[in-house]
Amino acid sequence: MSLARVHNFSISLDGFGTGADQGPDAHFGHAGDRLHQWMFATQWWEAGGTAGVDDVFVQRHDPGIGAEIMGAGKWGHPGWHEDPDWKGAWGPNPPFHTPVFVLTHHTRPSIDMEGGTTFHFLDTSPAEALETARKAAGDQDVRIGGGPTVIRDFLAARLIDHLHVVVVPILLGRGVRLWDGLEGVEKDYKIEQTSSPSGVTHLTFTRA
Amino acid sequence: MSLARVHNFSISLDGFGTGADQGPDAHFGHAGDRLHQWMFATQWWEAGGTAGVDDVFVQRHDPGIGAEIMGAGKWGHPGWHEDPDWKGAWGPNPPFHTPVFVLTHHTRPSIDMEGGTTFHFLDTSPAEALETARKAAGDQDVRIGGGPTVIRDFLAARLIDHLHVVVVPILLGRGVRLWDGLEGVEKDYKIEQTSSPSGVTHLTFTRA
Repeated sequence: MSLARVHNFSISLDGFGTGADQGPDAHFGHAGDRLHQWMFATQWWEAGGTAGVDDVFVQRHDPGIGAEIMGAGKWGHPGWHEDPDWKGAWGPNPPFHTPVFVLTHHTRPSIDMEGGTTFHFLDTSPAEALETARKAAGDQDVRIGGGPTVIRDFLAARLIDHLHVVVVPILLGRGVRLWDGLEGVEKDYKIEQTSSPSGVTHLTFTRA
Repeated sequence: MSLARVHNFSISLDGFGTGADQGPDAHFGHAGDRLHQWMFATQWWEAGGTAGVDDVFVQRHDPGIGAEIMGAGKWGHPGWHEDPDWKGAWGPNPPFHTPVFVLTHHTRPSIDMEGGTTFHFLDTSPAEALETARKAAGDQDVRIGGGPTVIRDFLAARLIDHLHVVVVPILLGRGVRLWDGLEGVEKDYKIEQTSSPSGVTHLTFTRA
């Protein structure tokens, strides 16, 4: 069965998946790159990086994934819909290499990028988006790519099968929270916490 | 030097140190005892319990402590100030065995309990309360006992020297958050995360 999986989703100790004051040069707002430094220290990111627990977790991002669903805020910075020719914040060869379904109220025609990524734009519910993405993914799994609001909506709709969250030891104070309004959702899952020598903790939810 | 220390303060994944709907029979509201089950499984709590990482952390609660500061909500359930003769929610022999300073706008005369605990009632700032507690503690440390609002206020005032928080894998959704309004506080500390086989993660902040 095709699973809906979240990988490498980083949050602060106080639960923010992105900071405040997002903009073209600050995709994670005032968080900067602090939520993702653990990732840049691995050999997955750069030769000579670490090969331990952070690396084995981060490498689960791609294998077995046939499509991604992401929010409009991951695809582009606020206001992107005012430029009908813009192709998103991920450059000419985005790191997805599959169909990517962007959830937005500002739909536009699909865009073929280099390297096998095609952006499709959907204005639908999480459940309908997942059904569409599963068809595109064939036998493979669908990655729910974030941001925090999208992951929260999919969790609330009980659509996530595997959730990997990375808790980074910083206090952002402001931004968009991952966990709001999810009381009791953990009851559907087996949860494990794995602390890393890098200072982060990996949290995994799998269907109980 | 006398340190201000927090031990065994448990929060949910979504950051709540106590649940909603607190009352005489629900000191942690709808959280019940779910935030503290990790503690009840240790040999510190009961013979035959675990002797691993949870137990060694939990046992740091008492040694070297000469006084505690707690909030009014830890001393008694909401409305306690309407009963001038009540002696708090901790029974005739409270588990503190030191002077305990209760922060409240409803002060009353000090109360001597069995076993060396004396409750004092203060309507002062965190810094003033800490100064008073340090005098009572002699050369020993002062435990900041909670609840979440008290620990948050002491963190915001940069008064905590050692913070031990236990992250329990449940989503409470409602209650009182520990981390609100503490942006950047982690910069004063060295932080370590230690996951336990029991499923919780121990988080320690020590002065950098």
